[in-house]
Amino acid sequence: MNWNVYLSGEIHSDWRQQIIDGAKERNLPVIFTSAVTNHEASDAAGDVLGAETDSFWRDHKSSKVNGIRTKTYLDKCDVAIVRFGDKYKQWNAAFDAGYCAGVGKPYITLHDEDIIHPLKEVDAAAMAWAKTPEQVVEILDYVTRAR
Amino acid sequence: MNWNVYLSGEIHSDWRQQIIDGAKERNLPVIFTSAVTNHEASDAAGDVLGAETDSFWRDHKSSKVNGIRTKTYLDKCDVAIVRFGDKYKQWNAAFDAGYCAGVGKPYITLHDEDIIHPLKEVDAAAMAWAKTPEQVVEILDYVTRAR
Amino acid sequence: MNWNVYLSGEIHSDWRQQIIDGAKERNLPVIFTSAVTNHEASDAAGDVLGAETDSFWRDHKSSKVNGIRTKTYLDKCDVAIVRFGDKYKQWNAAFDAGYCAGVGKPYITLHDEDIIHPLKEVDAAAMAWAKTPEQVVEILDYVTRAR
Amino acid sequence: MNWNVYLSGEIHSDWRQQIIDGAKERNLPVIFTSAVTNHEASDAAGDVLGAETDSFWRDHKSSKVNGIRTKTYLDKCDVAIVRFGDKYKQWNAAFDAGYCAGVGKPYITLHDEDIIHPLKEVDAAAMAWAKTPEQVVEILDYVTRAR
Amino acid sequence: MNWNVYLSGEIHSDWRQQIIDGAKERNLPVIFTSAVTNHEASDAAGDVLGAETDSFWRDHKSSKVNGIRTKTYLDKCDVAIVRFGDKYKQWNAAFDAGYCAGVGKPYITLHDEDIIHPLKEVDAAAMAWAKTPEQVVEILDYVTRAR
Amino acid sequence: MNWNVYLSGEIHSDWRQQIIDGAKERNLPVIFTSAVTNHEASDAAGDVLGAETDSFWRDHKSSKVNGIRTKTYLDKCDVAIVRFGDKYKQWNAAFDAGYCAGVGKPYITLHDEDIIHPLKEVDAAAMAWAKTPEQVVEILDYVTRAR
Amino acid sequence: MNWNVYLSGEIHSDWRQQIIDGAKERNLPVIFTSAVTNHEASDAAGDVLGAETDSFWRDHKSSKVNGIRTKTYLDKCDVAIVRFGDKYKQWNAAFDAGYCAGVGKPYITLHDEDIIHPLKEVDAAAMAWAKTPEQVVEILDYVTRAR
Amino acid sequence: MNWNVYLSGEIHSDWRQQIIDGAKERNLPVIFTSAVTNHEASDAAGDVLGAETDSFWRDHKSSKVNGIRTKTYLDKCDVAIVRFGDKYKQWNAAFDAGYCAGVGKPYITLHDEDIIHPLKEVDAAAMAWAKTPEQVVEILDYVTRAR
Repeated sequence: MNWNVYLSGEIHSDWRQQIIDGAKERNLPVIFTSAVTNHEASDAAGDVLGAETDSFWRDHKSSKVNGIRTKTYLDKCDVAIVRFGDKYKQWNAAFDAGYCAGVGKPYITLHDEDIIHPLKEVDAAAMAWAKTPEQVVEILDYVTRAR
Repeated sequence: MNWNVYLSGEIHSDWRQQIIDGAKERNLPVIFTSAVTNHEASDAAGDVLGAETDSFWRDHKSSKVNGIRTKTYLDKCDVAIVRFGDKYKQWNAAFDAGYCAGVGKPYITLHDEDIIHPLKEVDAAAMAWAKTPEQVVEILDYVTRAR
Repeated sequence: MNWNVYLSGEIHSDWRQQIIDGAKERNLPVIFTSAVTNHEASDAAGDVLGAETDSFWRDHKSSKVNGIRTKTYLDKCDVAIVRFGDKYKQWNAAFDAGYCAGVGKPYITLHDEDIIHPLKEVDAAAMAWAKTPEQVVEILDYVTRAR
Repeated sequence: MNWNVYLSGEIHSDWRQQIIDGAKERNLPVIFTSAVTNHEASDAAGDVLGAETDSFWRDHKSSKVNGIRTKTYLDKCDVAIVRFGDKYKQWNAAFDAGYCAGVGKPYITLHDEDIIHPLKEVDAAAMAWAKTPEQVVEILDYVTRAR
Repeated sequence: MNWNVYLSGEIHSDWRQQIIDGAKERNLPVIFTSAVTNHEASDAAGDVLGAETDSFWRDHKSSKVNGIRTKTYLDKCDVAIVRFGDKYKQWNAAFDAGYCAGVGKPYITLHDEDIIHPLKEVDAAAMAWAKTPEQVVEILDYVTRAR
Repeated sequence: MNWNVYLSGEIHSDWRQQIIDGAKERNLPVIFTSAVTNHEASDAAGDVLGAETDSFWRDHKSSKVNGIRTKTYLDKCDVAIVRFGDKYKQWNAAFDAGYCAGVGKPYITLHDEDIIHPLKEVDAAAMAWAKTPEQVVEILDYVTRAR
Repeated sequence: MNWNVYLSGEIHSDWRQQIIDGAKERNLPVIFTSAVTNHEASDAAGDVLGAETDSFWRDHKSSKVNGIRTKTYLDKCDVAIVRFGDKYKQWNAAFDAGYCAGVGKPYITLHDEDIIHPLKEVDAAAMAWAKTPEQVVEILDYVTRAR
Repeated sequence: MNWNVYLSGEIHSDWRQQIIDGAKERNLPVIFTSAVTNHEASDAAGDVLGAETDSFWRDHKSSKVNGIRTKTYLDKCDVAIVRFGDKYKQWNAAFDAGYCAGVGKPYITLHDEDIIHPLKEVDAAAMAWAKTPEQVVEILDYVTRAR
């Protein structure tokens, strides 16, 4: 069987690519999905439906369009990787983790040691906490191929 | 019928009390629940089960004990109010919102205008966005008593 | 046991009151809930959260606030009565019927004979079709009290 | 992955074909399903099971046969497009939208600006509102292929 | 806690009354519900909605009205007792048992030894098979009061 | 898409083969599943696990083994055909229909006119009632291929 | 609100009573339920339905009768306490824990340190691990009454 | 269709291989999944995420990593085989059985006669009890291929 792995969270470093490359090198039976990671494209996702003058509604409209994709991929994935970086609020990553908890989908967090405390509720409902993309690849290798 | 309303998020301002007081003044048919909001007590929730030397596991243990309460109250509430303040990461608030989305529970966000953009995914799945506790009380009044 | 009955749809005739009065006269073990039926109040439900210049977003905001109430009452009811009158589009009534079908909640439609054809999909998923409020009361009487 | 998209609603204009053609031109990974859109065939769906003299029961029988198809396709789709035109009651379209809301399936509405107000509850639970088939194609393109 | 017990099946002997009396004598914390057991009333449940000339549709209409009650009571019960007598087809009893299996509701069958073989699938999904109403009362006593 | 159709009920006439042949002739996109229809094999399904002296337990054991298959196929099917013949009790057919109703799976009944009354509850929850295998094939053709 | 707490597992020490007494002393808003803890009564739960010569079927019958109670109480509880002692296999305790995990019900394990390793999968899905009944009472106190 | 069969429990005898070989010999349409059965690898599953000094947390971390795999395979399987040997506690096997019961997944137990009594609750919720791997293969053959 192929495993569907959803990559959620931070879009300002290349952690997704590192995991994808690592999985490819090891030839893991894994298919990756993700939100749209182009920041500008993501913010403008709803613009095609008509311009908004109020920034709240522009964000609202784009987020709902993006939600069609993220909800579908989250619902179909076998496990999600939720990444928290050192910048920005990243509430969407925590939201995705909560969504996973709500629907009973296992997820792995990926973050540095210095944000353990504010992430304690998110980590408490996770199946694992990784510090590096390489660790995530190791776990995916073990979970999908060990005997 | 009495409405169960869960108050999630920020614990450094008195927004919970303002909502509770407002609802009491108007005699709304509402019962409020909440996570433990005493920060020290919450961080120490698991200590009674044995001390931990590693702070990750202390947080982990306490968060799981707190999770017994928060998951139960969230599952039983009719609507959640999720508050984001201007300090700290507040990933647990976003996590609660995501959990609500996952189990199909309506929620209202409560936050200032300056964090609209980072909260766009959380707001997009919410039923309403309020800027003040008084607005939340107004909405609760309308939802539970209008005819 | 008390039965929770949700009254959905048309707000321009007194069908709700007729059913409520009929149930009261017979002393049926029934509790009624409903959306807010004051048209102006309902359209303005979200105004307290801030004025909107764009009518789409005003409607959107108010409808979501109303949705907190309607979804909660629908989820808690034992049976819904969905009324279609001879005026207006009444898509919200058909929407409520579809919602009931989606969550497996039994509902009864209430409408005249001349709109049988356009309502055929809505009637096909209903447990009964009544033509008068009195018939609804009779059914509620039978369902809750016959032996 | 291929996306399953259900096309619900109006059958008197060629909006379905426009979306299907647009998706084909762009080579989108999308599979479309739909109710039977031949009006006469749809009305007669149950006739093979025996003629009915009462038009209510003929409609009832045909609608249930059609319901085998529509429920199955709705349950299997990833996203539904729900179209409201300017003629007829189209309660079945609103019913499908409500069904989607009930089972947690994302949907996009497609309608002109002049029916915003009567569709406010339907739009409030939608992930997007499009005014043209071309906009729907754009959204499908973004959701299924953006990176 | 009070236990809700649904009594399904045969209406031509007094097994329901025997169980209700037995439970009352022992003062068990049990509340009983049931379909309407007056045969004529049950067959005529839908007549108030208009006469039918075709007996299939008369049955259909009445069965759906009865279904509002039976589905609601089955969904709310903690355990169902499903009785099969020696006369008639009693497919509705087997249907109720299957419904219980579908929604994960425990049920006890009540029938004589001579119909073990045709009831084997129904018994296989049951939690117990009783031969007499007295045995059912004994089981209810044990389940609700033993320590 | 291929449709999975479960054929439940009577095993003493060739209705299954007629439907399968009819679907093949029309080249319908349909895959059929069924319980084991060899009566002796079905009754002996559990014998390999050890002989039983008590016929109740032999039936019980075999029915549970058969249940692994029937539950799995019912859970995976898109629509079930439930056949009632003129002989035997056929409670397992009614049980399967109830199971479908419990899990929200559409089903079609197949039976003669003379057993309408005892099957009224089973028919009331069905999507259609057919009198002949040919009618079932017609419905499957329409549902899976009409446009 | 009152919390429903299910006490699962070992029946050879007085841990249940210690927790119940501790909760009573502190006047906690907690209601306790449990399987029948009288070993002989529990083993004989099905005897009233007829004697069995084969011990497997006697156990089977009694376990199913007990299952009516345990499944109902587990489904209704807010949190379960699952106790593992130092004697016997106690597979039923591990089964209850697995059931909780399957339906998303939080549970706390209660066991000594020397069986950490064989219980690792059970503990991994638990919300907390307590070593003494007193610790369980402390956690219940915190969860139900802290502010 | 291919059947997914999850093999749970004892890792100290070759029962898995016997079942897999038996199924291969008969060319059954069955795909097997399993937890990682290399004891050392399984205990060390979480080590890649960082060493732990406390054995409870090492076990916890590894069990959660293993849980990503076991939960996913259990959720995807059509039927589970749960094996209990004569050594060790094997609480994880009973936990898997309970999980299956919680999510409504059929399972077959595989164990010797001398542990019938302590396994009575686990067997009571099972679809079959086998004593040898060969019997399991026979059942799989019957369930997947009989006609």
